[in-house]
Amino acid sequence: MTSPSVHLGQTVAPVVPVEPTPLMPVAIGDAHITSGFWAQRQRVNRHATLQHCEYWMGRVGWLENFDAVAAGTIGDVRKGREFADSEVYKLLEALSWAHAAAPDPDLDARIQALTERIAQAQTADGYIGTKFGSPGQEPRYSDMEWGHELYNVGHLLQAAVARLRSVRDDRLVDIARRAADHVCATFGPHGSQTVCGHPEIELGLVEFARATGDQRYLHQAELFLERRGAGTLAEIEWGRSYFQDDVPIREAQVLRGHAVRALYLTAAAVDVAVDTGDGELLRILERQWANTVARRTYLTGGMGSHHQDEAFGEDFELPADRAYCETCAGVASVMLSWRLLLATGDVRYADLMERTLYNIVAVSPSPEGTAFFYANTLHRRAPSTASADDEASPRASSGMRAPWFEVSCCPTNVARTFASLSAYLATTSASGVQVHQYATSTIGAALDSGQVRLQVQTEYPTEGAIVITIDETPADEWELQLRIPSWATGATVDVAGETTPASPGAFTVRRRFAAGDVVRLELPIAPRITYPDGRVDAVRGTVAVERGPLVYCLESVALPAGAHVDQFVLPTGADPRDTEDGVTIDGILEAARDDAWPYSAHPTITRRQQTSAFLVPYHSWANQGPGTMRIWLRHER
Amino acid sequence: MTSPSVHLGQTVAPVVPVEPTPLMPVAIGDAHITSGFWAQRQRVNRHATLQHCEYWMGRVGWLENFDAVAAGTIGDVRKGREFADSEVYKLLEALSWAHAAAPDPDLDARIQALTERIAQAQTADGYIGTKFGSPGQEPRYSDMEWGHELYNVGHLLQAAVARLRSVRDDRLVDIARRAADHVCATFGPHGSQTVCGHPEIELGLVEFARATGDQRYLHQAELFLERRGAGTLAEIEWGRSYFQDDVPIREAQVLRGHAVRALYLTAAAVDVAVDTGDGELLRILERQWANTVARRTYLTGGMGSHHQDEAFGEDFELPADRAYCETCAGVASVMLSWRLLLATGDVRYADLMERTLYNIVAVSPSPEGTAFFYANTLHRRAPSTASADDEASPRASSGMRAPWFEVSCCPTNVARTFASLSAYLATTSASGVQVHQYATSTIGAALDSGQVRLQVQTEYPTEGAIVITIDETPADEWELQLRIPSWATGATVDVAGETTPASPGAFTVRRRFAAGDVVRLELPIAPRITYPDGRVDAVRGTVAVERGPLVYCLESVALPAGAHVDQFVLPTGADPRDTEDGVTIDGILEAARDDAWPYSAHPTITRRQQTSAFLVPYHSWANQGPGTMRIWLRHER
Repeated sequence: MTSPSVHLGQTVAPVVPVEPTPLMPVAIGDAHITSGFWAQRQRVNRHATLQHCEYWMGRVGWLENFDAVAAGTIGDVRKGREFADSEVYKLLEALSWAHAAAPDPDLDARIQALTERIAQAQTADGYIGTKFGSPGQEPRYSDMEWGHELYNVGHLLQAAVARLRSVRDDRLVDIARRAADHVCATFGPHGSQTVCGHPEIELGLVEFARATGDQRYLHQAELFLERRGAGTLAEIEWGRSYFQDDVPIREAQVLRGHAVRALYLTAAAVDVAVDTGDGELLRILERQWANTVARRTYLTGGMGSHHQDEAFGEDFELPADRAYCETCAGVASVMLSWRLLLATGDVRYADLMERTLYNIVAVSPSPEGTAFFYANTLHRRAPSTASADDEASPRASSGMRAPWFEVSCCPTNVARTFASLSAYLATTSASGVQVHQYATSTIGAALDSGQVRLQVQTEYPTEGAIVITIDETPADEWELQLRIPSWATGATVDVAGETTPASPGAFTVRRRFAAGDVVRLELPIAPRITYPDGRVDAVRGTVAVERGPLVYCLESVALPAGAHVDQFVLPTGADPRDTEDGVTIDGILEAARDDAWPYSAHPTITRRQQTSAFLVPYHSWANQGPGTMRIWLRHER
Repeated sequence: MTSPSVHLGQTVAPVVPVEPTPLMPVAIGDAHITSGFWAQRQRVNRHATLQHCEYWMGRVGWLENFDAVAAGTIGDVRKGREFADSEVYKLLEALSWAHAAAPDPDLDARIQALTERIAQAQTADGYIGTKFGSPGQEPRYSDMEWGHELYNVGHLLQAAVARLRSVRDDRLVDIARRAADHVCATFGPHGSQTVCGHPEIELGLVEFARATGDQRYLHQAELFLERRGAGTLAEIEWGRSYFQDDVPIREAQVLRGHAVRALYLTAAAVDVAVDTGDGELLRILERQWANTVARRTYLTGGMGSHHQDEAFGEDFELPADRAYCETCAGVASVMLSWRLLLATGDVRYADLMERTLYNIVAVSPSPEGTAFFYANTLHRRAPSTASADDEASPRASSGMRAPWFEVSCCPTNVARTFASLSAYLATTSASGVQVHQYATSTIGAALDSGQVRLQVQTEYPTEGAIVITIDETPADEWELQLRIPSWATGATVDVAGETTPASPGAFTVRRRFAAGDVVRLELPIAPRITYPDGRVDAVRGTVAVERGPLVYCLESVALPAGAHVDQFVLPTGADPRDTEDGVTIDGILEAARDDAWPYSAHPTITRRQQTSAFLVPYHSWANQGPGTMRIWLRHER
């Protein structure tokens, strides 16, 4: 997820973009979200989630694993799954971005303390890992399919990049450099010709190459990418597509297999394509993204239909009730779209990022930031049950957020995303500044002609007005580009008293700005009905309600006592509306029925009563306690 | 599956039925299916499948495991999963039923050879198992959750019951008796207070009690049943409902968790309820069955929606494309319904048996009987891929039948079901004979007043006429009961030239029969449209076509080249019809579309062309080669 800092500039390696320079990110210290929806989540993340994650990692023994390697006792005492190390690294990355966004000696001290703890586990040859290679353990790299050794190192490298982009060199960067060198020595052109079952090392290496300027890491990432897809890994029950080892990346048409694996790998491939000037690869990856979004993505932006293998399903296999939509796949999707946005400048990538941030990533944490959804179903049929606050939870069996998981990848993934979120707001290019995500914020950007500073004021996504004040500007003409979301038909932009209609896509204001100029974007955020494609079987005959970038849902707490959300049916022409407390819609409540066999010679008719229901943003579901829930509401045609 | 012989009579233990005597089975040697749909499958089973299973068990080393236990080398060489032993026992059961139905010295020799091979692995105290307790292995009963030790013994007991019901005592029965005694000694009232993670020992014990007359085995089965549901087994990711250890069986409202586990357990509970005279338990089990059929069963009779944990989903969670519907769950469902039919006389149980036999059990094997479906999806979105003939296959990843599986429970389960199928045709009671399943066959039954012999002639399920000739009859009046399937509205029964309308349910002809009398049943088997309940989200806006007891499906091979079954839409009023070669239906073929996002502000409209499609019985799907398939056809309303 370190992509916000890609090309940041302080220690940037030579960057060779494929196309006439696309977009460059704004440095993390130059953009600040100051209030509103995301500011609140960033605050909670900084003051609760980071500490929560560190507490749990101590509690379940994942931190102690590093101590035990140093003490030589790890063979007897190791705790957690193969990838437990990566959680410590993702926490370090999150802490580093938080410190980069707003330096704090306490954060820095925690980073350094964790770094010392890790350092002692690194061997003289640079290898670092708590699961293999120590006395009483299997040998290093003896299980490439499931061992996650390189996956863990990839996250270590991403954490180090976050340090490189902020405090420059420190001990964590040294550890990472030695680990990366060990990987290159072991898996280089003349080394072991294999890949890791879980892509991630590729991402870490390509970012580390950029941040350090050392091209060896880029070439190693490229090697791993090119090696994949030839049946390098063993066959498994779900097929080699599970770890994208079924076909070479250049031959694939769509993302498939384990969703997080597929998305991390594709994100890394975009970076490699950009840094090696491989335009053909980039176009292939754009097509894979487009096919995946067109046929294998939920309304929420969620990806991955299967619980069993946490995998993408076939085209249009998007069951609402068995949606897996892992939070980490949402984070990974944001990472991929961000890289494609930077590489191409196409704002449809920013559209999907917004959808996924609001309707997957923001769904996961509780308002307190100390409990999380691992999977994000679109339909909860059985009343959810609360998790005990002090118990690690199975991944996806509960309909309530849980404080921790045996496989606890999601909390730290949310933490590192929120810690670096301000970097996603805007980019710069040769021609000006592009604002992609709307939040009350300040954005600074260095154009060739001089410094730009913007102040954004908005109640988005509750309200559709976004007011951008130019606080500082070069004298020369430049372009301010605004993203008009794909759903925002009827948007307008007001510049210096003149109002212009703005169609979905990129809207550009080109002019000589003066300090104090105001650009006002008005997005139509009234509630709207959305229909699914007829090929998505699971939600045929239903509609969803969206409002601005938010997907809404119906919870049983909004219905008469005892009613199930599945009894609620919308009549033809149902029209959701804003009311004082939120979105309301009129529907019909079917009587509960008790038939002996759910299939019959005639459509079943049932007694009905008129009712109105109050819908809530999906990201807030289950906050009111256990119940049933659905996004796609039954609809009479 | 040995239930066909329950109460058979040769060596029957005292039976204490709960209700005024319900139904008694016909002995397996007294009923013979002589031609038609099931006769063909029985022939293939006898002449191909039994040998195929024995070949594969030798090939993958599951037979050799028994030799290795005797040789003391098993710790180093054991092959297969924890439950590999059970496959050998299920094969023995299938061979035994085949031999019982039509004695054959070759079959008997194979049974005895396999028995000798097993015998050498039994220890002096009666324990038998190849996975635990030998040098180099974990101790016996050290993994009650996943070890399957008692599960294996349960299948051994069922195999022995098949011998007891046919050749009476032999070596296999001795082995089983010693194994059962060991189980009673180890897990009895003063023994280890636990249960096996996979129910099956309960079924084996209760049947073995009946067949031997030894009530200790019944009481041990009862102990296992009563012990379950108190969190005896460890918590697992999917919850203790996975192995029905979440709530006591008397408190459960519906089947849940792993489908095969739930169905085996419930079948055993019916037997225990009958043999202990526990009418309250029987009524609870009837309610569980009814709730499961009303809310958790596919149109095909298939049970189990989840791939991940092979489990029942929530009520109405019945996705067609991710239907698991394990073949073994179909077999187990037939076992459960059969026991409830015997215990209550209610023919709705025979209805579900018919549905499940035709649309799950018969779907699994290829026409040659040497390849099998493990899972039985109702919708195949991606063209299926063929399995190599000489390779064991993953369970459910292919859309084609495979010769063998790493977890290969289904082939032997199909084999033992087909070998004993004729026992399901009819039952007797104090008042007469009940015919439940229709096939060209001869059925003999001993009534108190004398011998009955029936000859059944039919082309069912292709044709709806069933002609029953009374070949032998007592002089006294008796009742011939015919099952009118629930779908058969408009059936008629013709007795001695007089035609009477017969409603779905039990139709009884009570009279003094004379040899040569003919009763003619006419079932309306014209193709019909079936609608799903509005709460089954996954198939809303679709209909299925059924014809008689058969569910039909559309395969892409029936459409213009390149078309996907998902493009086929039925107009309002679509009417399937019998044509010369089968069932034809007129529909509309939508043009393939390529949208960027499958959700929109208006329902999508697409170009369409009229087309007719030929539907095939679901049991024959994939016989024409790889393609896409669906049972539930999109339907305009």
